[in-house]
Amino acid sequence: MKKVITIGREFGSGGRELGRKLAERLGIAYYDREIITAIAEKTALSEEYVDRVLERRPTQIYPFSHSGTFYLSFDPHFHLNNSIYAEQTSIIRSMADRSPCVIVGRCADYILKDRDPFRVFVYSDMPHRLARCRENAPENENLTDKELRQKILAVDRDRRKYYRFFTGQNWGDRKDYDLSINTAVGKIDDWVELISLFVEKL
Amino acid sequence: MKKVITIGREFGSGGRELGRKLAERLGIAYYDREIITAIAEKTALSEEYVDRVLERRPTQIYPFSHSGTFYLSFDPHFHLNNSIYAEQTSIIRSMADRSPCVIVGRCADYILKDRDPFRVFVYSDMPHRLARCRENAPENENLTDKELRQKILAVDRDRRKYYRFFTGQNWGDRKDYDLSINTAVGKIDDWVELISLFVEKL
Repeated sequence: MKKVITIGREFGSGGRELGRKLAERLGIAYYDREIITAIAEKTALSEEYVDRVLERRPTQIYPFSHSGTFYLSFDPHFHLNNSIYAEQTSIIRSMADRSPCVIVGRCADYILKDRDPFRVFVYSDMPHRLARCRENAPENENLTDKELRQKILAVDRDRRKYYRFFTGQNWGDRKDYDLSINTAVGKIDDWVELISLFVEKL
Repeated sequence: MKKVITIGREFGSGGRELGRKLAERLGIAYYDREIITAIAEKTALSEEYVDRVLERRPTQIYPFSHSGTFYLSFDPHFHLNNSIYAEQTSIIRSMADRSPCVIVGRCADYILKDRDPFRVFVYSDMPHRLARCRENAPENENLTDKELRQKILAVDRDRRKYYRFFTGQNWGDRKDYDLSINTAVGKIDDWVELISLFVEKL
C-alpha cells in the first residue's frame, strides 16, 4: 500500500470528509487542522494567524518594490510567511515519515513528492458545493446564495494562488494528481470505498 | 447503474484497454472502432477517410477566407466533415439508447450529455505512454523515442483541437468529467475493478 495519501480539494467539495473517512477506513493517521496547531505551537504564533497565512491570499507575501528598488529583506510579512511555510514543510515531512497517513490540503502533494504519495484531487459542481456548505455552516451564518457562491469562489482563488506561489504548479491540474473525482456524482462513502480498495493494491 | 460510460483518453494512456476491459467486466457493449465502421457504411466513405477526419486536425474544417470574403458554402471539405460529425452524433446516440455501453473517445461525453453518462478521462506520464506505445506498435514501426514522443503529442494535439472545435470545451478539463485517472500509477486491471464497483452503485 502507498504510505501517504494527499488530498487537494475545492472548497465545499467534501474533500475533508472524504479524507477523514478514508483514513478511518484504512486505519491510518489523518492530518488537517492538526498541521495548523503544530505550526502555531512551534512558532508561538496564534492558530488564527497561521490559518490566515496558510489559507488566504499570498499577495501580502510578494516582495514589494518602491521606486524600482526591492525592499525584500525589509518586509517582515515576507519573512514571517516564508517561515510559516518552512515550518509547515518540516511538520508535514515528519508526519509522513512517522506513519502511513492521509493529509488534506497544505500543498502536501508537492511537499512530499519524493515520498511518492497517492495524490487525490476532489472537486464538485456549484449546486452541490452550495448545498454542502449550507449543511456544514455555523448556525449564525446567514449568507444568501450569491454571497455563499462568492465565498466559495474566493476560498478557491486563495488556495489556487497559494498553491501556485509555493509550488509553481497549477492547483488541480490533473498531471500533478493520480486521481481526480467529482463528488457531484455518487456518495462520499462510495468514493471512500473505491479509493481505499485501490490504494491497498498499490 | 449508470447506463453509459464515456472514456476520453490521452494517446498511449491505456484508455482503450481500460474501456474494453470495463465493458467486459460489466457485461455491456463496447464501442470504439465500431463507430468509424458504422459511419463509413452510412456515408459510403472509406473507413480510412472517416478515421482521418475524426481523429486528425480539424483545421481543414475551418472555413477559409479569401480577400475578406468567406467561402464557407463553397468548401466541400467543410460540409463533408460536418456531415461526418452529424452522422457520428446520430450513431453514438442510437448506440447509447440501444443498451448500456462503454464508448471510447468521439466526444461521446459531450454528445450524450442529456443521457447523463459517467464520464472518465484517462491520462498518464510520458515514460509510461512511450512504453505502452512500444508494446502495442505494429512490427514495422521503428520510431526513435523522440519521434514516438512527437507522434504522441501530435495525436493529443489533434484530439484537443477536434474536441474543442465540436464541443467548445477544453479536452481533459476536470469539470467536464466525473473521474480522471493517471494510469502511470497502479495496474489497468485494478482501475477497471475500481470503476466497475463504483459505477454499479450509481
